[in-house]
Amino acid sequence: MAPNTPRLVHPIDLKKKPWEQKLPLHNRWHPEIPPVANVQVSQVFRVEMVDWTGGVIRDNDAAEDVKSIDLSTVHYLSGPFKVLDEEGIPARSGDLLAVEICNLGPLAGDEWGYTATFDRENGGGFLTDHFPCATKAIWYFEGIYAYSPQIPGVRFPGLTHPGIIGTAPSMELLSIWNERETQLQENGLKSLKLPEVLHTRPLANLPTPNGCLLGKIQQGTPEWEKIAKEAARTIPGRENGGNCDIKNLGRGSKIYLPVFVDGANLSTGDMHFSQGDGEVSFCGAIEMSGFLELKCEIIRGGMKAYLTPMGPTPLHVNPIFEIGPVEPRFSEWLVFEGISVDESGRQHFLDATVAYKRAVLNAIDYLSKFGYSKEQIYLLLSCCPCEGRISGIVDAPNAVATLAIPIAIFDQDIRPQSSKIPVWPQIVRKPDVLKCTYDGNLPITKNHGGATSSLVPQSWQQK
Amino acid sequence: MAPNTPRLVHPIDLKKKPWEQKLPLHNRWHPEIPPVANVQVSQVFRVEMVDWTGGVIRDNDAAEDVKSIDLSTVHYLSGPFKVLDEEGIPARSGDLLAVEICNLGPLAGDEWGYTATFDRENGGGFLTDHFPCATKAIWYFEGIYAYSPQIPGVRFPGLTHPGIIGTAPSMELLSIWNERETQLQENGLKSLKLPEVLHTRPLANLPTPNGCLLGKIQQGTPEWEKIAKEAARTIPGRENGGNCDIKNLGRGSKIYLPVFVDGANLSTGDMHFSQGDGEVSFCGAIEMSGFLELKCEIIRGGMKAYLTPMGPTPLHVNPIFEIGPVEPRFSEWLVFEGISVDESGRQHFLDATVAYKRAVLNAIDYLSKFGYSKEQIYLLLSCCPCEGRISGIVDAPNAVATLAIPIAIFDQDIRPQSSKIPVWPQIVRKPDVLKCTYDGNLPITKNHGGATSSLVPQSWQQK
Amino acid sequence: MAPNTPRLVHPIDLKKKPWEQKLPLHNRWHPEIPPVANVQVSQVFRVEMVDWTGGVIRDNDAAEDVKSIDLSTVHYLSGPFKVLDEEGIPARSGDLLAVEICNLGPLAGDEWGYTATFDRENGGGFLTDHFPCATKAIWYFEGIYAYSPQIPGVRFPGLTHPGIIGTAPSMELLSIWNERETQLQENGLKSLKLPEVLHTRPLANLPTPNGCLLGKIQQGTPEWEKIAKEAARTIPGRENGGNCDIKNLGRGSKIYLPVFVDGANLSTGDMHFSQGDGEVSFCGAIEMSGFLELKCEIIRGGMKAYLTPMGPTPLHVNPIFEIGPVEPRFSEWLVFEGISVDESGRQHFLDATVAYKRAVLNAIDYLSKFGYSKEQIYLLLSCCPCEGRISGIVDAPNAVATLAIPIAIFDQDIRPQSSKIPVWPQIVRKPDVLKCTYDGNLPITKNHGGATSSLVPQSWQQK
Amino acid sequence: MAPNTPRLVHPIDLKKKPWEQKLPLHNRWHPEIPPVANVQVSQVFRVEMVDWTGGVIRDNDAAEDVKSIDLSTVHYLSGPFKVLDEEGIPARSGDLLAVEICNLGPLAGDEWGYTATFDRENGGGFLTDHFPCATKAIWYFEGIYAYSPQIPGVRFPGLTHPGIIGTAPSMELLSIWNERETQLQENGLKSLKLPEVLHTRPLANLPTPNGCLLGKIQQGTPEWEKIAKEAARTIPGRENGGNCDIKNLGRGSKIYLPVFVDGANLSTGDMHFSQGDGEVSFCGAIEMSGFLELKCEIIRGGMKAYLTPMGPTPLHVNPIFEIGPVEPRFSEWLVFEGISVDESGRQHFLDATVAYKRAVLNAIDYLSKFGYSKEQIYLLLSCCPCEGRISGIVDAPNAVATLAIPIAIFDQDIRPQSSKIPVWPQIVRKPDVLKCTYDGNLPITKNHGGATSSLVPQSWQQK
Repeated sequence: MAPNTPRLVHPIDLKKKPWEQKLPLHNRWHPEIPPVANVQVSQVFRVEMVDWTGGVIRDNDAAEDVKSIDLSTVHYLSGPFKVLDEEGIPARSGDLLAVEICNLGPLAGDEWGYTATFDRENGGGFLTDHFPCATKAIWYFEGIYAYSPQIPGVRFPGLTHPGIIGTAPSMELLSIWNERETQLQENGLKSLKLPEVLHTRPLANLPTPNGCLLGKIQQGTPEWEKIAKEAARTIPGRENGGNCDIKNLGRGSKIYLPVFVDGANLSTGDMHFSQGDGEVSFCGAIEMSGFLELKCEIIRGGMKAYLTPMGPTPLHVNPIFEIGPVEPRFSEWLVFEGISVDESGRQHFLDATVAYKRAVLNAIDYLSKFGYSKEQIYLLLSCCPCEGRISGIVDAPNAVATLAIPIAIFDQDIRPQSSKIPVWPQIVRKPDVLKCTYDGNLPITKNHGGATSSLVPQSWQQK
Repeated sequence: MAPNTPRLVHPIDLKKKPWEQKLPLHNRWHPEIPPVANVQVSQVFRVEMVDWTGGVIRDNDAAEDVKSIDLSTVHYLSGPFKVLDEEGIPARSGDLLAVEICNLGPLAGDEWGYTATFDRENGGGFLTDHFPCATKAIWYFEGIYAYSPQIPGVRFPGLTHPGIIGTAPSMELLSIWNERETQLQENGLKSLKLPEVLHTRPLANLPTPNGCLLGKIQQGTPEWEKIAKEAARTIPGRENGGNCDIKNLGRGSKIYLPVFVDGANLSTGDMHFSQGDGEVSFCGAIEMSGFLELKCEIIRGGMKAYLTPMGPTPLHVNPIFEIGPVEPRFSEWLVFEGISVDESGRQHFLDATVAYKRAVLNAIDYLSKFGYSKEQIYLLLSCCPCEGRISGIVDAPNAVATLAIPIAIFDQDIRPQSSKIPVWPQIVRKPDVLKCTYDGNLPITKNHGGATSSLVPQSWQQK
Repeated sequence: MAPNTPRLVHPIDLKKKPWEQKLPLHNRWHPEIPPVANVQVSQVFRVEMVDWTGGVIRDNDAAEDVKSIDLSTVHYLSGPFKVLDEEGIPARSGDLLAVEICNLGPLAGDEWGYTATFDRENGGGFLTDHFPCATKAIWYFEGIYAYSPQIPGVRFPGLTHPGIIGTAPSMELLSIWNERETQLQENGLKSLKLPEVLHTRPLANLPTPNGCLLGKIQQGTPEWEKIAKEAARTIPGRENGGNCDIKNLGRGSKIYLPVFVDGANLSTGDMHFSQGDGEVSFCGAIEMSGFLELKCEIIRGGMKAYLTPMGPTPLHVNPIFEIGPVEPRFSEWLVFEGISVDESGRQHFLDATVAYKRAVLNAIDYLSKFGYSKEQIYLLLSCCPCEGRISGIVDAPNAVATLAIPIAIFDQDIRPQSSKIPVWPQIVRKPDVLKCTYDGNLPITKNHGGATSSLVPQSWQQK
Repeated sequence: MAPNTPRLVHPIDLKKKPWEQKLPLHNRWHPEIPPVANVQVSQVFRVEMVDWTGGVIRDNDAAEDVKSIDLSTVHYLSGPFKVLDEEGIPARSGDLLAVEICNLGPLAGDEWGYTATFDRENGGGFLTDHFPCATKAIWYFEGIYAYSPQIPGVRFPGLTHPGIIGTAPSMELLSIWNERETQLQENGLKSLKLPEVLHTRPLANLPTPNGCLLGKIQQGTPEWEKIAKEAARTIPGRENGGNCDIKNLGRGSKIYLPVFVDGANLSTGDMHFSQGDGEVSFCGAIEMSGFLELKCEIIRGGMKAYLTPMGPTPLHVNPIFEIGPVEPRFSEWLVFEGISVDESGRQHFLDATVAYKRAVLNAIDYLSKFGYSKEQIYLLLSCCPCEGRISGIVDAPNAVATLAIPIAIFDQDIRPQSSKIPVWPQIVRKPDVLKCTYDGNLPITKNHGGATSSLVPQSWQQK
């Protein structure tokens, strides 16, 4: 072995369940989840990881696994790793932890992934009121490229990255999270005046012992009982990094994470072969198992030196990132725009979320004219290397968001043809994505275009 | 003259006021503003334009002009141009108008621009509750590069583009705009439960005869009186394109605009030497006078063929864009992240606007550690070629937005230094931006970091 | 005028001949050609220039002008400019002159250019033994794009640059040039054992009073007579920069030129709208008139500090270049390879010139299968943004050279189709380039492929 | 295993010698070397390979292994692979074989490589008359990055690629090779009038049974004896591809190889972690063991359809390449120029090899001013991602070649400083490359700069 061969600090056996791994996994953030290994600065180490569902979603011909998934069990993370400096002194609270992503990829023998949308009653996605059904597409990898039998005519190079990388929160930070998310859960609908239709989807995912996995802490012990009740879920990105889903965080990137507990307790998981900005379908990247080769540095006192809290406590900070120099290079982009007027025609005030939603809907409808189903494009825009931009955020009342799609990923020219109008329909791309019926209780209405179903209730549209 | 020398269809004399130009300008959208010239498909034509304020903001040593500006007069647009095909038949409602940007730049003899923030009581900007004062920085151009005496140590190549390009709305579309924006203006604060503090800033800018300029239609005529009362303001981007502020819309780009009236009636203005995604300071690009060389094509019936309405009428569509192949090329980026937790610590539900605000605040504070004032960075991030991304929009409750800044625009390495902590303060970048005092009535509070002033009232923070 | 508006130091009137310009041009390198203007460091100045032939080649439908051109008159340069520092002290011999290209482009009203090959008896080009005729294609510009009526189906953005930029040589350097080029002229054919066929083309272009233009020095004066006999021709690039033809020297580039005479005496000319690496057809870029906006800095003593002579005197140095950040961005390239085996099958020893010739011939033949004539492609590869690389220069006996062509410049997919073989012929691209018959005396033989004519005599092939 | 997991068709055991591998290697080109495996189109297969010397050069602290290496044994290739279509019908002579590089990298546990120059009497390199000694630098990989203890202060991402990929020649093609290279070997020095000094280095490497390895054909058999005498050496790239050393042939590239024998008999080897254009030091890339994941397609009749022979037979063709979309992205380059005047001051006629040599020498000397030794830079320019261009090949008598170096690979700013002249020497980069003394017989002379030793004899310089 070469002297610098990465040391494998967290191996994964894909034939075993997440809770059967030799080094146990965890799916919560908590300061008391014990490290599974020590890592030293300047040394490259290798971390393997299961896909975010721990193998629940399979390479098969049905979407039932997507429909019935229990989201209280995700995301399974590898680690935590305790980070030591050259003298063996751990990172300390107040330091910055610089983590370089030296290499990454799928696990050998497991070169596939999936993109999916959840059922509207089970989390849905960004466009769940238009696409309430659970759907799934399988992707196979040919080295840097991915293709899907369910989305024919598309192939693209992945910008592979970890969806989740973060340090353990301190108890103080954990309390802040739980408090603010509880407040949202309790008062959010009322205060935000969201339409009733959204009630089916939780506004926040609060701590729950259901599905909780805490690494070395054995289920059933008093310690487990205590931690399971207060440990934060992994769904949102937060001050510790976590599920930041930054699509450009590929090979050569460097992440500066605040350290809240001694040792930093770095965890990572949720590998994405590729993701579009926004990860719109929610289970939206090309989700896969994989490995990371990482190298750490400790910047002593770096939190104070580099991060200014943007909130009421010194813990209200965010990580900083440097993007790596190796990315797929696209030269031609088709760009869709959205403004903060929703599908009912209602005007919102500088709301980038509404604007981006409309940009994505515009793109889906446009591309469906080229023979794809809308479901194919929804999944595609969630996982291909498209860019979602906040183009204008000041020109009241319209935020302008844009979605830029690299033209080269299609096997046809998807630009408008100025010489002549194409005759519809184009070649229909078959087979389609794998689907499950939506059997929820909420009415589905149609918007003007006739093409897109909308669940936004009439009452809200009239407001 | 070469046979393809662009024909100048809208000349500007910079020594004259907007209303004194030979071909008159307009600052409203209305179907009845008459074209100033015809242009034919496949022929390159040249359009000159004043800066968006029509010369109100000057290359001087004070910010008083910014503070006292009357925003009812902006943006002064060149055009409208009636677009004809090879046989002289005009573009018709329902067509798509493809406009290629062949070339663009500043006007000879006027190679400078400005970036500014408005006073909080006069429109403010994205961070007006942190930066309530009117400020200004002057930029000088050296070919592709811009530098500012008020922001020393920074120089960057511009990705020059028109902030505004659009077609005239039909009366039906105009009514939709006025109705929905009036609704927001009247009910927005209540329904959105926005904090009172925002009352100083209009939620929408409704039609007003004040400051209204309508091209060939003479002020004082009955026609003028009628149109001035119903013509839409130019501030927001809308279905017709308009103020879309897409920073990558440079040389070689192509814009597919819906046509709502016969002839299309294309107008353009608000040239930006450079802009960052979001244009956060509002007067936020490097604003300048300039010229465009354009070439049009008509895609007959293209609206139906390519655009699906995302709203209650067939007019609820948005333009599509192709980005040009010539852009400044940056390889190294430092990326700041924000989540949808505001500065008071309050949790918002997947709100990309809040997340982006926090990303921008994080970046400002970080960069201020390198010797710049916060005001310098606020203006800089508004106009330099930084990218604002919606990274994650599904991981409830946190939207994750990122702001990526090209490292090469600084004359120092602005990355965190992992080997040692720099000793603060660094070289202070003097002189600073030009400022005016804020003399509004609203209290200013401090956030934890002590560095940033916040105007968000306590009552709202506690919610 | 803005305070930084570039000062026009060398205006051109396109209605006048090169020798009639208000500030006279020159077409030779000599220390005693007097400066036409002073320029100061840090100040942007504007230089206008005629095309390299001074208007001899016209935008018309024939190639006679190309066939009969007198090459003793080219290239017409603007300048020289004497460069002073802030205190007015001139650049001195031994300094480095850093010249930044702030901006450049065609002259207004003259937005066209041409690419041509000369007749084999009048200089020819890189492939003159295959293409002995004079040919011409006219290019029209649409902003950043160029297209040619003679090469239909191709359009590309230019990477505009000056073909020539250099400082005046000292008398000592001039003597070195004249001596070594005279030696080559006299002994070259013999010592290099070149085939007789090349005798028609001069190995070097030695000083000649024919066609000589010396700026402010009036023809007929004794001074003129003396200088005309010793002034170096401008064809080759040399130690002073000169005709370096570096295609990437566009906006934002910086050139570090050695200073050999007091004041530096900077000259420039030969604007190229676009050029391919190698400029293979000789009159091979898209040649045009144009302007440069430049800014100078003086690095005192910089020659000694930064340049080490690679030859018998301290003057045997070469300039250094920094490439600008704004270039057309291509993502997909088709690459042709050549090895140092010539068309007769003869093996050469690590000869990159032979290898590159074969790569270019391979590319021409390949692309001619897509409906273009070989002459169209020869001109195209000379002026489009293709990259010519020395890929391997050590694997005896074969040098490997490659020619990479951006796929996006064609309106068809020019990659080999793996699914099926296209049926030839494809659409023939008409009209063709403008041509003149070759009426020289040398025999033309055919190579195996039957498609390419070769002038290499049999005797040489057998060696 | 996922259904598309690449099938390993040629495994390597790094603990064994090249001739001990389970599937035997070969180091010659010959139609009768039997395939080791069949591969089918559309299926991804994995090929492992030793480094080009088969483990002779080691990760140690000395350069003796480089000095004493027996070059008759290189390069050890994996394969040949017989390529079949979906129906099992082999590729046939006259087809094109499209080979896609899906993935590649170092072998796990062997993450290191080396760059070296050979002793002048044993092959030397491009600059052997300046650098006659054997030298070596070891590189360690950290994922995409490489760094060398012998070249401190430099780190860069690799653009990893196979140096050799090719199909087997037919007997007819093999005869052409042997004949033309024999002619060069016998008559080259005389006809080219090369200086005597080059006699030490073979002009070509003719077939020799010494060190010959022929895959499944056992040494000592009559078959072996016959083939060993006629099989072509692997050093040069030729019509079959082979050692083309194209640095951009990384992930996602596609190579169109002519097929000369049934089954195509594809072989590959000589993995490079990174290489500069030209691979100037000869053992010049970062040489390593590694793996490729490949996918083939057969274009029936593709040779005739796409390749035109450039020589006396239909076999005189060259492969075509498509470059992949994933490369390290550099924005800032420093460019060195060379013209075809050699170090003795002698003028050559449009000789790109001489021009490139001078460009490389210029770059070495320049960078040595920043504290590096010349030997460090020589090795660095051989293996870092620098670009070698033929900029001008028509401006008689000077070819202009350029060498562009990405600035970001250095930990200091290597641009000329215009504000002030740096004080030499800078920080000396220690330790230096590993060296062996040169003990050949030829005199070493000094050129003017005093810094560079030259072996070009005076007699030749005077010519």
